[in-house]
Amino acid sequence: MHFDIITLLPELLASPLSHSIMQRAKDKGLLTVELHDLREYGMGKHRQVDDYQFGGGAGMVMRCEPLAELIDKLKSERTYDEIIYLTPDGEQYAQRRANRLSLGKNLLLICGHYKGIDQRIRDEYVTLEISIGDYVLSGGELAAAVIVDSVGRLLPGVLNDETSALTDSFQDDLLAPPVYTRPAKWRDHEVPPILLSGHTANIEKWREEQALQRTKDRRPDLLTD
Amino acid sequence: MHFDIITLLPELLASPLSHSIMQRAKDKGLLTVELHDLREYGMGKHRQVDDYQFGGGAGMVMRCEPLAELIDKLKSERTYDEIIYLTPDGEQYAQRRANRLSLGKNLLLICGHYKGIDQRIRDEYVTLEISIGDYVLSGGELAAAVIVDSVGRLLPGVLNDETSALTDSFQDDLLAPPVYTRPAKWRDHEVPPILLSGHTANIEKWREEQALQRTKDRRPDLLTD
Repeated sequence: MHFDIITLLPELLASPLSHSIMQRAKDKGLLTVELHDLREYGMGKHRQVDDYQFGGGAGMVMRCEPLAELIDKLKSERTYDEIIYLTPDGEQYAQRRANRLSLGKNLLLICGHYKGIDQRIRDEYVTLEISIGDYVLSGGELAAAVIVDSVGRLLPGVLNDETSALTDSFQDDLLAPPVYTRPAKWRDHEVPPILLSGHTANIEKWREEQALQRTKDRRPDLLTD
Repeated sequence: MHFDIITLLPELLASPLSHSIMQRAKDKGLLTVELHDLREYGMGKHRQVDDYQFGGGAGMVMRCEPLAELIDKLKSERTYDEIIYLTPDGEQYAQRRANRLSLGKNLLLICGHYKGIDQRIRDEYVTLEISIGDYVLSGGELAAAVIVDSVGRLLPGVLNDETSALTDSFQDDLLAPPVYTRPAKWRDHEVPPILLSGHTANIEKWREEQALQRTKDRRPDLLTD
């Protein structure tokens, strides 16, 4: 799978994309990520990429021309499953979307800054707008890193068995049950005895009950969707 | 404001915390962030930090002892407004929480890995559990970066006027209206004429209508909460 990422801050993404599971996926040849510095497509000798917004108001807007030039170039080289703009007013990103994106071949991610990109670029090029949550970030870069990480770890062969994605939260619309490891007694806190019983069927049942209870307590919305 | 971050991958966080608005906030002395490598508190000569989960099943669990030792040390040095564990089954992070956290002085963030941390650490130390969205990441590091960025940019003096946080999405429970910048005509796409009218009151009204319409179309849930 291949990601192209358009950003004004490629260096911000350097370390998240070169460690942990992302690096492992790249080493295994399962994932390639290319960063494209929008500044190189900026206008004039100051490489301008943004301008004041029409109608006035605080906050700069990213101009059409540099984005269009770069996107046109990338589109001439690859066919994208989705051209994704990361924005707080996009679709709320969730595991189901991550699963679906992981079946694709090429994804283009556009990171906004300031007040965002000119609406006409969204109208003209963008096929999917994603928000990673109901909060505002300095730019789209961390959101892009979240997409690459959450999608990348689903690619077959990226995770080893021990970190299998199948028992994660959300894969069955339930939160995960509580987990415990050694020692069985830590300070005055003991592990629930059922987990030490060796009775696999009962343990499975307990975990399902715990997952359901936790979901009811914390996220009843997941059960009613 | 000060953040302490407990992580097994401090190097993953290097570049997000040293660019853009985060670096500016640090340069201005408004924000300090300290990364604490949990591995240094690992057990035995292999610096073990995790173990198999009780009851069996895929995925390792982070042990109590190294976390407890490091948290105890940090708590002896500072008083935390919140000790936050980043986990998919936590409270859904939203702008309102970011606003509230930005009023604090010291925050401790704990990044999980694998299947997460032993439940007893959550019971014993954690005062707030946060999920940045309904999807699974390789670890809590990107979530921690999201918290630092979304909270950091709210600190007085971090943003300049032009990127004022007040007109961002979510601050008034509405999505932001579309934005446009020069040129007024790009290819065959024109800017909505109202924005070129110079009539401030009408522009304000148009923006409010657009924000409301976009919220109705995309996120009706924000209007009914």
